[in-house]
Amino acid sequence: MNQSNINIGEEIYKWASDLFPMCRSITGQGVRETLTYLKNILPELAIFEVESGTKAFDWEVPDEWNIREAYILDPDGKKIIDFRNNNLHIVNYSVPTDVSLSLEELDKHLYSISERPNAIPYVTSYYERNWGFCLTHKQRQSLQPGIYRAVVDSTLAPGFLTYGELVLPGRDKTEVLLSTYICHPSLANNEISGPVVTAALSKWLISLSERKHTYRIVFVPETIGSIIYISRHLKHLKESVIAGFNVTCVGDDMAYTYLASRHGSTLADRVARHVLGHLDPGYVSHPFLKRGSDERQYCAPGVDLPVVSIMRTRYGDYPEYHTSDDNLDFISPEGLGGGFNALRCCIEVLELNEILVNTVLCEPQLGRRDLISNIGYGPGKADIDRRVLSHLLAYCDGSKDLVELCEIINLPLWDISKAIDILKEEGLIEATTVNRSKMT
Amino acid sequence: MNQSNINIGEEIYKWASDLFPMCRSITGQGVRETLTYLKNILPELAIFEVESGTKAFDWEVPDEWNIREAYILDPDGKKIIDFRNNNLHIVNYSVPTDVSLSLEELDKHLYSISERPNAIPYVTSYYERNWGFCLTHKQRQSLQPGIYRAVVDSTLAPGFLTYGELVLPGRDKTEVLLSTYICHPSLANNEISGPVVTAALSKWLISLSERKHTYRIVFVPETIGSIIYISRHLKHLKESVIAGFNVTCVGDDMAYTYLASRHGSTLADRVARHVLGHLDPGYVSHPFLKRGSDERQYCAPGVDLPVVSIMRTRYGDYPEYHTSDDNLDFISPEGLGGGFNALRCCIEVLELNEILVNTVLCEPQLGRRDLISNIGYGPGKADIDRRVLSHLLAYCDGSKDLVELCEIINLPLWDISKAIDILKEEGLIEATTVNRSKMT
Amino acid sequence: MNQSNINIGEEIYKWASDLFPMCRSITGQGVRETLTYLKNILPELAIFEVESGTKAFDWEVPDEWNIREAYILDPDGKKIIDFRNNNLHIVNYSVPTDVSLSLEELDKHLYSISERPNAIPYVTSYYERNWGFCLTHKQRQSLQPGIYRAVVDSTLAPGFLTYGELVLPGRDKTEVLLSTYICHPSLANNEISGPVVTAALSKWLISLSERKHTYRIVFVPETIGSIIYISRHLKHLKESVIAGFNVTCVGDDMAYTYLASRHGSTLADRVARHVLGHLDPGYVSHPFLKRGSDERQYCAPGVDLPVVSIMRTRYGDYPEYHTSDDNLDFISPEGLGGGFNALRCCIEVLELNEILVNTVLCEPQLGRRDLISNIGYGPGKADIDRRVLSHLLAYCDGSKDLVELCEIINLPLWDISKAIDILKEEGLIEATTVNRSKMT
Repeated sequence: MNQSNINIGEEIYKWASDLFPMCRSITGQGVRETLTYLKNILPELAIFEVESGTKAFDWEVPDEWNIREAYILDPDGKKIIDFRNNNLHIVNYSVPTDVSLSLEELDKHLYSISERPNAIPYVTSYYERNWGFCLTHKQRQSLQPGIYRAVVDSTLAPGFLTYGELVLPGRDKTEVLLSTYICHPSLANNEISGPVVTAALSKWLISLSERKHTYRIVFVPETIGSIIYISRHLKHLKESVIAGFNVTCVGDDMAYTYLASRHGSTLADRVARHVLGHLDPGYVSHPFLKRGSDERQYCAPGVDLPVVSIMRTRYGDYPEYHTSDDNLDFISPEGLGGGFNALRCCIEVLELNEILVNTVLCEPQLGRRDLISNIGYGPGKADIDRRVLSHLLAYCDGSKDLVELCEIINLPLWDISKAIDILKEEGLIEATTVNRSKMT
Repeated sequence: MNQSNINIGEEIYKWASDLFPMCRSITGQGVRETLTYLKNILPELAIFEVESGTKAFDWEVPDEWNIREAYILDPDGKKIIDFRNNNLHIVNYSVPTDVSLSLEELDKHLYSISERPNAIPYVTSYYERNWGFCLTHKQRQSLQPGIYRAVVDSTLAPGFLTYGELVLPGRDKTEVLLSTYICHPSLANNEISGPVVTAALSKWLISLSERKHTYRIVFVPETIGSIIYISRHLKHLKESVIAGFNVTCVGDDMAYTYLASRHGSTLADRVARHVLGHLDPGYVSHPFLKRGSDERQYCAPGVDLPVVSIMRTRYGDYPEYHTSDDNLDFISPEGLGGGFNALRCCIEVLELNEILVNTVLCEPQLGRRDLISNIGYGPGKADIDRRVLSHLLAYCDGSKDLVELCEIINLPLWDISKAIDILKEEGLIEATTVNRSKMT
Repeated sequence: MNQSNINIGEEIYKWASDLFPMCRSITGQGVRETLTYLKNILPELAIFEVESGTKAFDWEVPDEWNIREAYILDPDGKKIIDFRNNNLHIVNYSVPTDVSLSLEELDKHLYSISERPNAIPYVTSYYERNWGFCLTHKQRQSLQPGIYRAVVDSTLAPGFLTYGELVLPGRDKTEVLLSTYICHPSLANNEISGPVVTAALSKWLISLSERKHTYRIVFVPETIGSIIYISRHLKHLKESVIAGFNVTCVGDDMAYTYLASRHGSTLADRVARHVLGHLDPGYVSHPFLKRGSDERQYCAPGVDLPVVSIMRTRYGDYPEYHTSDDNLDFISPEGLGGGFNALRCCIEVLELNEILVNTVLCEPQLGRRDLISNIGYGPGKADIDRRVLSHLLAYCDGSKDLVELCEIINLPLWDISKAIDILKEEGLIEATTVNRSKMT
C-alpha cells in the first residue's frame, strides 16, 4: 500500500475511534449522533426521518428505541453488569424494566457464548418486546444464587427511523450506489468500518474535478433501513444504478473478500473481480449464497440491483464477529486504508470504463506516429509497451467494455489508461454510444 | 436404505423370480406370459397385439416366434444341450430344425465365450433365418468328433408383436414416460429387473391420492417394440412428455448410473443428476455416446424425447452381461429396492417441481410470522433452518424451476418441500404459470 | 508420417533450399525473384505490382528497396562484414551509405544479441530512413578502435510492392484463404517454410478432380502486404471466406501449434483444433493474445475474417527465431512434410464438412441392408464398426456440422467419411441446405 492510502487509513481510523462508543440501534439517538458526526465530514449529507408505523413492502418502521442506563445488581447490591462499560451488555431494543428476580429467572434473560468465554455477544430483539443482558460466559458462570435486580432505563415509543443520503451528481445519469449501515452499537469491523470508509470515499468523490457517473451514497440501518430506502426509490434505482457496493467489514487487514450479486455477472461483479484480482490475487470469492447484509434487499427478486460486497474479512468468517472482540483493536489504519483503496479502485474502473472502437481497419501504423520504435522492438515516445497498444487496437471492436477487454489481456484497467488516452488523442480509437445492456 | 425400500425390494425380487424362467423374445408366448403376470399386479395394464408385417418407420413387425423344445444329441445319443435346462441355450428366433451333422458342421451353429468359459452366452438372429445353440466354452471344447443331432422344435410364422401400456392420468396434461423391455429370456439384471421395478413404480403411482403429471408406462420388446410404440404415438409424445426414463439394469447393488439424453440438458437429465447426486454422490455419469437401449429410439433425431436412463450397473459395464451369469444371484432385493427408490425420487421431484415467485419485494419479515426466532438466530415455530427459508425467498424469482434452484442451494428438493409449503401458506411465494420452455 | 508425406517433404525442402538465399524485403527484386520461382511451380500464380505511395487504410506503400552490396572495412581495410556472406548482415531497408567513421560512431549502427553470441540478428527499418549492420555478438566484441568504412550500395526510391495471388475455383462460392509471407531474407522457418508449404498445398489443390470450396492463396509481404490485399478485397473476403490459415513457421519438426482467431470459435478454429487434436494430441494452443503475423490484419476489428495459424514451433517460441540460426538446418523435410500434412488435413476436413440429417425416424434397420451382422455384434458387408454407423445416425440431426459431430464422437472426420458415404448411398442421411451461420 502506498503512503497516501496509509495517511487516509489513519484519518479513517480516527473517525472510527470517535464513532465506536456510540450506542446505535436501528432507530434512536445513537443513529442521529452518528449521522451528525458524518455530516461534519460531509456537509452535503442529507438526513431523513421516517415515522414509526410507516409501511415499506412487508415491513413497518418500529417504535424508536432509546436507552440511558442498564445494569444488574447482584444479591449484595453490587453493580456487576453496567451498560456504561460496554453498550453490548444490553440486548438491543430491550424494553424498560426494573425487577428483582432469582438467578434462575434472571438466567432466561442472559446471553453469552460458551465457545468464546471472555467475549460479550451482540444480541437484538427488534420485533419482539423483550429485555436481556449480554455478558461474558466466564462472568455468567461465576454468578451465585440469590436475588438480583435488573434495571433497564429505556424508552420504546413512536418516533422515527433516521438515515443519511448523499447524491453527488455526475456528467451522466448512470448511478453508482454505495450503501453502508449505521445500526450496530460498539462493533468495529462489522459496523463502524463501513460508514467511515464510505465517508472517506465520499470525500474523495467530492474532491474530483469531474465525475462521469452520479454517486448515490446511503447510510442506513441494516435491513429495515435499506428496505425503507428501496421502497422510496425503487423505480429510480432500477433505471439508474449500473453498479452498487454494500460497504461493510472493511477494517481488518486480512485478505479481501468479494461477495457476488444474485445474478453474479453484473457490471459490479465484473468490476469487483477485476479490481480484487489485481490487488489481491488470493482474494476470497463468495457466491450470493453466502450473503448476509443489505445485498439481501438490493438483490432481492424484483429489486434486482447490481450490488455486490467488497470486504476484508466477511461477517461470520471471523470468530470475533458480533462480539465485544470486534473492537478498535480488530481494525487498523492499514486495514481501513486497504478497504478504501479497493473500493476507490472499483470506482476508478467504473469512471474509466467505456466501450471503445477502432477508427481504422487493420492495424494502424504506430511507427509513423512514433508510438513504437521504428527500428527493433522498443517503445516509442510515450514509453508504452507495444503489446499494450497492439492489444488495445486488436480488441477495441465496439462489442465489449474495457473491463472485459482487460480481463482478456490480463492487465488492470488503471495500468492501460495512459495508452487509451494516447490512442484517443491520435484518433485511433473512440468511444461508442454506451450500450447499456453491455454496461450492466 | 430405509426399511420400506427393503420390503419393496423383497416384493420386487419375488416377482423377478417368477418371471425369470419364461422364455421371452421380441414376439411370442413368452412376452404374453410376462405381460399376463404383470397384469395380475397391475390390472389396469392394457395389452396390445401388432400384426406381423405392420410397418413402423424403417421397420416391419417380423413373424412371431415360439419354441417348445430344442436340444442336441451327441454321437452316443445323449442329450448334451437342452433348452429345458436353460433357455439361453437356443439362439433366439432359431428356425425349426432337425438335422444330423458332423461336429465340424455343428460348430458353425455353436456360440460360446472363450473369456468366460463357464457361461452360456445370449445370442439372437431376429432378422435372418438361422438356427444355433449357445453353450459354455468349456462344454464346447469337450465335444468329440462324430455325428450329432440338432433339434429345434420352433415355429416362425405370421402372428403378432405384443406390448403393454398403462396410462395413469394426472391433474395436468404433462406426461412422464417410463419405458422398459420384455424381450430377453432368462436374464436378470439386463431384462427382468426393468419390468419388475417398473411394475412397483406403477403400483406406487396408482396408490397416490393425486398425481400432477400423467404417467405413461410401457412394457415393450426392445428396439422394434419402442419403434412401434413411437410410430403410433409420436405426435402425442412430442407434445406431452416432459421427462422420460428407460428402466433397465436396476437390480444389482453396485453404484448408480445415469445415461444422458441426446440433448443432455433436458428436464429428465436435470432431475436424474439432482436425484443421483444426492442419493449417491459417486454415481457414474455417461454421455449419450454410451447409449444402448431404447433411449436410442426415444432420443433419435426427429423423435427427440427427453428420455434418460437411470441404472445400477449399466449393460456392458459388467462381465456377466448377456450371459447365463446375469441370473437371479446377480440381482438382489437391496439392488432392486435401490433402483426403485432412485426412480421414485425422480418422480417425486417431477411432481414437486414448479416455478415459484416471491409475492413481496425485498425480504419479508419472517420474525413477525414466527418463521424465525425474534431474538438470536434460532428457528421459528416450524423448526426450519432460517437459511433454507432465506434461500427460497432469494431465489424464487420466476425464472428457474425448483430443480435449478436446488442445484444452486445444494439441497435435495425433498428436503425443502416443507419450507416451500409453509412459505406458500404464508402467501410469500406462489407458483407462476408453468413456462414449458423452462420445464423441458 | 507416411511415405507420401516424406516424399512431399523432400520436394518442399528442395524448393526451400532454392529460395533461402534470396534477399527478400517488403518490396524489391528479392520478392520478385521469389514469386518468379513460385510461378514456375504454380503457373496459374498471378503477380501484382502496387505503386509506392498507394494508400491502404492507415498505410502507404513505401519506396521500393533494392540492394547490391554492403560491407564494412576495418581500420586495416579488411572486409570484416559482407552482405554477400549473409544477407542478414544488412539492416533491411538501409539507405545508401559510404562513410568512414570511428568504432564508437559505427557502433550506433551495429546490432547483435548478447544472449546468442554466435548468431546474426534480423533487423529492419522500413519506415524510418536509417542504415545498419547486424553481426554476431562475438565479432562485435572483437572490433578494435580505429576508423572503419561502411558501404551500403542500395536504392530506396519510388517503385512497387509485389505480391502473388492464386484463385482456384470450386463448386461453391465459399472460399478458403491461405496466406503466407515473402518478405524476410534468409530465414528458414519464419519465412521460407510458409511459401513452400503453401506452394505444395496449391499444387495438391490443383491436382484434385473436384473442389467444393474456392481457394484463395496469397503470397504477400507481411503486414503492409496483407493490409494492401485486404484493402483491395475486403467486401469480397467478408462475404466469401469461411475459413483461413496464415501459413508460417511450418518447417521444423517439433510439436504443432494452433493460434486462435480473434473470435476463437470460428470454423477455422474448430477445424484446426479438430485436426491437430487427432494428429498431435500434445499440440500447443495459443489464444489470439499471442498473435504476431498476418492474423493481426485478417482478424482486426471490422475485418474479422475467420483466420487462424497452424504452425510447428511458433515465432518467438524458439530461440533461433529472427537470427541466422533459423536456417536450412533448422527446418527439415520431415518438418515441412508434417506442416503440409496438417494443413492438407484441415482442407480435407473443410471439403468434407457439411450438415447432415437423418432421413428416417428412429434407428434404421441396418441388418436388413447388411450394414451390420444379423447375428452377434460383428460388422456387415462394408466392414464398418457398428458404433460409427450408429453414432452418425444418432447425431446427424441437421443442427451441427460434421466437425462438431466428430468432436462429440471423438473420431477424426477422415476416419468416418467412408461410413458417411455408405449411409448416403443407402439414403439414410442427406446433406441439408448449408446453414452459413453454423458453417462459419
